[in-house]
Amino acid sequence: MSELPVFGAGIWHFATYKDRYATDGYGPEVGLLEQIDRAGAVGDLSVVDLNYPFVGFDGTLAEVNAALARNGLRAIAITPEIYTRTFMKGSFTNPDPRIRQQALELMHEATAVAKQLGCDYVKLWTGQDGWDYPFQVNHHDLWNLALDGLKELVSAHPEINFVIEYKPREPRVKIIFPSAARTLLGIEKIGLPNLGILLDFGHSLYGLESPADAAQLAIDYGRLFAIDVNDNMRGWDDDMVVGSVHLVETFEFFHTLRRNGWQGVWQLDQFPFREDSVEAARLAIRFLKAIHRALDVIDDDALAEAQSRHDALAAHRLVQDALLTSMAGLESPR
Amino acid sequence: MSELPVFGAGIWHFATYKDRYATDGYGPEVGLLEQIDRAGAVGDLSVVDLNYPFVGFDGTLAEVNAALARNGLRAIAITPEIYTRTFMKGSFTNPDPRIRQQALELMHEATAVAKQLGCDYVKLWTGQDGWDYPFQVNHHDLWNLALDGLKELVSAHPEINFVIEYKPREPRVKIIFPSAARTLLGIEKIGLPNLGILLDFGHSLYGLESPADAAQLAIDYGRLFAIDVNDNMRGWDDDMVVGSVHLVETFEFFHTLRRNGWQGVWQLDQFPFREDSVEAARLAIRFLKAIHRALDVIDDDALAEAQSRHDALAAHRLVQDALLTSMAGLESPR
Amino acid sequence: MSELPVFGAGIWHFATYKDRYATDGYGPEVGLLEQIDRAGAVGDLSVVDLNYPFVGFDGTLAEVNAALARNGLRAIAITPEIYTRTFMKGSFTNPDPRIRQQALELMHEATAVAKQLGCDYVKLWTGQDGWDYPFQVNHHDLWNLALDGLKELVSAHPEINFVIEYKPREPRVKIIFPSAARTLLGIEKIGLPNLGILLDFGHSLYGLESPADAAQLAIDYGRLFAIDVNDNMRGWDDDMVVGSVHLVETFEFFHTLRRNGWQGVWQLDQFPFREDSVEAARLAIRFLKAIHRALDVIDDDALAEAQSRHDALAAHRLVQDALLTSMAGLESPR
Amino acid sequence: MSELPVFGAGIWHFATYKDRYATDGYGPEVGLLEQIDRAGAVGDLSVVDLNYPFVGFDGTLAEVNAALARNGLRAIAITPEIYTRTFMKGSFTNPDPRIRQQALELMHEATAVAKQLGCDYVKLWTGQDGWDYPFQVNHHDLWNLALDGLKELVSAHPEINFVIEYKPREPRVKIIFPSAARTLLGIEKIGLPNLGILLDFGHSLYGLESPADAAQLAIDYGRLFAIDVNDNMRGWDDDMVVGSVHLVETFEFFHTLRRNGWQGVWQLDQFPFREDSVEAARLAIRFLKAIHRALDVIDDDALAEAQSRHDALAAHRLVQDALLTSMAGLESPR
Repeated sequence: MSELPVFGAGIWHFATYKDRYATDGYGPEVGLLEQIDRAGAVGDLSVVDLNYPFVGFDGTLAEVNAALARNGLRAIAITPEIYTRTFMKGSFTNPDPRIRQQALELMHEATAVAKQLGCDYVKLWTGQDGWDYPFQVNHHDLWNLALDGLKELVSAHPEINFVIEYKPREPRVKIIFPSAARTLLGIEKIGLPNLGILLDFGHSLYGLESPADAAQLAIDYGRLFAIDVNDNMRGWDDDMVVGSVHLVETFEFFHTLRRNGWQGVWQLDQFPFREDSVEAARLAIRFLKAIHRALDVIDDDALAEAQSRHDALAAHRLVQDALLTSMAGLESPR
Repeated sequence: MSELPVFGAGIWHFATYKDRYATDGYGPEVGLLEQIDRAGAVGDLSVVDLNYPFVGFDGTLAEVNAALARNGLRAIAITPEIYTRTFMKGSFTNPDPRIRQQALELMHEATAVAKQLGCDYVKLWTGQDGWDYPFQVNHHDLWNLALDGLKELVSAHPEINFVIEYKPREPRVKIIFPSAARTLLGIEKIGLPNLGILLDFGHSLYGLESPADAAQLAIDYGRLFAIDVNDNMRGWDDDMVVGSVHLVETFEFFHTLRRNGWQGVWQLDQFPFREDSVEAARLAIRFLKAIHRALDVIDDDALAEAQSRHDALAAHRLVQDALLTSMAGLESPR
Repeated sequence: MSELPVFGAGIWHFATYKDRYATDGYGPEVGLLEQIDRAGAVGDLSVVDLNYPFVGFDGTLAEVNAALARNGLRAIAITPEIYTRTFMKGSFTNPDPRIRQQALELMHEATAVAKQLGCDYVKLWTGQDGWDYPFQVNHHDLWNLALDGLKELVSAHPEINFVIEYKPREPRVKIIFPSAARTLLGIEKIGLPNLGILLDFGHSLYGLESPADAAQLAIDYGRLFAIDVNDNMRGWDDDMVVGSVHLVETFEFFHTLRRNGWQGVWQLDQFPFREDSVEAARLAIRFLKAIHRALDVIDDDALAEAQSRHDALAAHRLVQDALLTSMAGLESPR
Repeated sequence: MSELPVFGAGIWHFATYKDRYATDGYGPEVGLLEQIDRAGAVGDLSVVDLNYPFVGFDGTLAEVNAALARNGLRAIAITPEIYTRTFMKGSFTNPDPRIRQQALELMHEATAVAKQLGCDYVKLWTGQDGWDYPFQVNHHDLWNLALDGLKELVSAHPEINFVIEYKPREPRVKIIFPSAARTLLGIEKIGLPNLGILLDFGHSLYGLESPADAAQLAIDYGRLFAIDVNDNMRGWDDDMVVGSVHLVETFEFFHTLRRNGWQGVWQLDQFPFREDSVEAARLAIRFLKAIHRALDVIDDDALAEAQSRHDALAAHRLVQDALLTSMAGLESPR
């Protein structure tokens, strides 16, 4: 069996959540250090992605580092919170130039923290940049604001990578970076080497893409910097546990990564609203190990031959032979 | 011009909101009395639907009544909050019998308040009753728990009406009352005269129904007790301002109500996350007045004749003649 | 291992298809007898569902019977073609009473053939009964026409069963029987014992239902007379090979059938537009055998316990243990 | 009132259709010359887009020209039929190199006809190029085949334009050019000046784009060569009559075109399966004239100001003032 990949998670996986109905939250608030301890408790995680500012935490960076260290974790990324109240009408594309400035400042600050923590990249998720209504915005202006802001930010920090995590919608009805192709158009226009894509499997799925195809496209442009996995019902970003619904497409996604020799972290972006977060991560990683085993055993030559003929039946016979035996002999980590 | 309908709104229309990203809220919290004052400021609202318990309000019912009175408002309904943290795995169908009991107690209490306020009905929105994952629940048991709980509650209060506001999903990935037909199946099984449907136009639309057809079905069973309007992109409960996207289907919905002589309140269930809530209600009512005018002028005989032949082209000619002239001469209420 | 179920298929599985683009068809036409021979060639099929009239076949019923016999097949059902040009505006609900009459005559005739062939049921698929546009029909009248026509037909033949195969859309934008709940409402109103549901897994899936929940509901009403399986992308009736996308929900669907002791045929309704139809059926049945094995090995007591707590994580651990080992040791039927 | 735009239609608007159920067609076949006569009968059409080969027509090009001339029509485009049986697994991306060659030959031939007819462009609709199943194709190879084939074709004919009509799906479950952004990525990679986009409003809508945003993007790249309009329910390419469902987004789409000074034909791509095709075109154009009037009267300065603040409420007040009075005084062309 080939070497296991590095597993990671967004630290928010171990938080509790609010929504517009359960405004009192789906559980008591969990502080940052406790979130890190929970991540450590999973047992298979090596890296985490941290939101910044560290919400509800007034300690020092050293304390964060210590918590990471005692759990055998490293911060792979910082995600600046450019989607809270201040930025509810956007960050890069906010209609108010002062808010745009404030967003940039926060991103510069987050980048400084990312460097201090030795992160691989800063993750930009522009969930409030977009529109809700027809006729709400001038689309030409909005897009250019996004590209201008990105260029200013990314060109100022050539020594660290930035990734855009595209998403079709939520919280905005329409988000400016909704798909791999649109995001690549923007990245190519900006033309900087340290700006790439974080492909969230679930976003791709409910955005009508085939995640494997989106991954291939980003790889072909040299821009697939990171990935997240989870699952959903193809209509919304349900952020369910990976492997709970779309097993075949998850397998195809990782198969595409392996075929291209992509070497990155297998990272979880799940929101276990009503579940134990440590158990949710363990179940996910157990499934990802089965996928990893299936990648080892699938007959790649035969699959390539079937694909050269676009023969779906032959391909699925091979896929099922690998996937539907993948849990056999895998010791339960529980 | 025929007499205008009575307009109403859920009081939450005038609150501010949280979601899983902007956990600090899309604006400062707005207290209950201020929400009522905002509803009064709209100028065309006569009734409101109140959540219970009165969140963040520790005053008396008399104060609420006074606030309503000074704004010319009446409480048409009470909506018990059976979807907060305690009930995150359901109210009627919670796996824990103690939580089911707690939910019922809250609903009895809310019903008592509804009677005191002279409300027309108690609204049950079971957004946490359902499931997220395949294999998560025993569907037989879940459905029976829902019907048993409803029967116990509704039969205990024969002197007031109850309505189920069905919805396909959110916050649960699947909700037990997702459609008009499923809800009617349950209501008919329960067999009580004081249990009906509140049809939310947007829920119907993104649930793949034709709202006019769903309304007709509920009317034919004598169960259309109330309605809400708003708009969305057909994929999620965006709760946008009515008239912003689906004008024709909104018109058809109200046309069906009028054809059946349905006499109820035209009620708003909008969530203006980033908009001024008073202005959002005003824009909505302005549009609803245009719809009301279009209902007055559409050639109903010709439309009935076209429909008897299933002639969509003839029907749309009539529809456009009425709808696309409906704002002419309507004085702006601004 | 428990006894294998009886496998079946719609005979159209072995035809070729047209659509609005490839009007010359996705292959040369395949005559009825050749379709039957292909069904026989699969090797695991015992029953087929036959369209009537036998399109492009001018032989005798005896020849059909002989073809079935030589392939070890039995006709389980007849599906009258009430969705061709004549019926493009509907069968039961056609605006023209003469066409409604013509549809009924065709259905009576098909029923006679079904009796002669010893079928279990007549399948009614009302794909042209519905509407495309808002305002096109009077929904009250349309629904009543459907129920009246059904009652007339079904009450005339108490000695054979009828099933309604519901579907949300296609070819009409909206179909009158779009969901399990709506269909059950109609069936209960009609009140005849020999009218039930054929639940097509794919229709349920892209109709926003959970197929397992829809099956349970139909069973609880004593109306689940038959099922079809296939797969799709949750947005359209793609009629893909079962097991190609939604493995977990397919497993849950059959698990629900078994838990209820449902004893019916596992039937394929696939449209292999660009695939070899015999191979497509073989791949499907191979997968269904794996599902059958997974049903045998899943820990049902532990699953029931997890479901009693709505514990999705515990349930999925059990599900994956069974499903992701289900192909091990299954000899390839190829 | 500003000058009316030029109206056009795909000639298939005036044909009859087949699908997988009504294989006998939704009406008797209509020959090419009769289709042209029907287009002429509409009264407002100036140009048509012709499929090639001329299906079921064995006359001469001169006869086609004469039919166009007597109806006051001009062929604006030729659409090669690279989506019939031969090409059911793709044209540019067919796994069989001989079929790819055959597709290219057909496209060269169609281009020659387009030049002879004085067309503005050749339209490429690659509806069979894509995949249906996960794991069916190697996405890298497929995309490159598409770009290589396009480059070979388009570079051979610098004196005429080519447009790609992107579409998310149907007949393939996934099509290689599914969105404006993906298509622009391909076009920019190919780098030829005579290759652009035909934006079909309905494809954009059910592909989760905002059509106005997609149009703006294509314009900003200098690649919006042509447009088609129709309507749908946001889940499928229903090709309904324009103005029957999404009035506001249709208005926003044309508003974006006007703001950018885009001067092209307003072209219909409707499939009136069950409707009179001439009447369907007339109803569509009547609505488009109302849109044109609304464009003339909307307060563009106030709208620009509202959009600069992302003020959806202020924008919609202006939009409704223009749209919901747009039919007043418009003489009915019937």
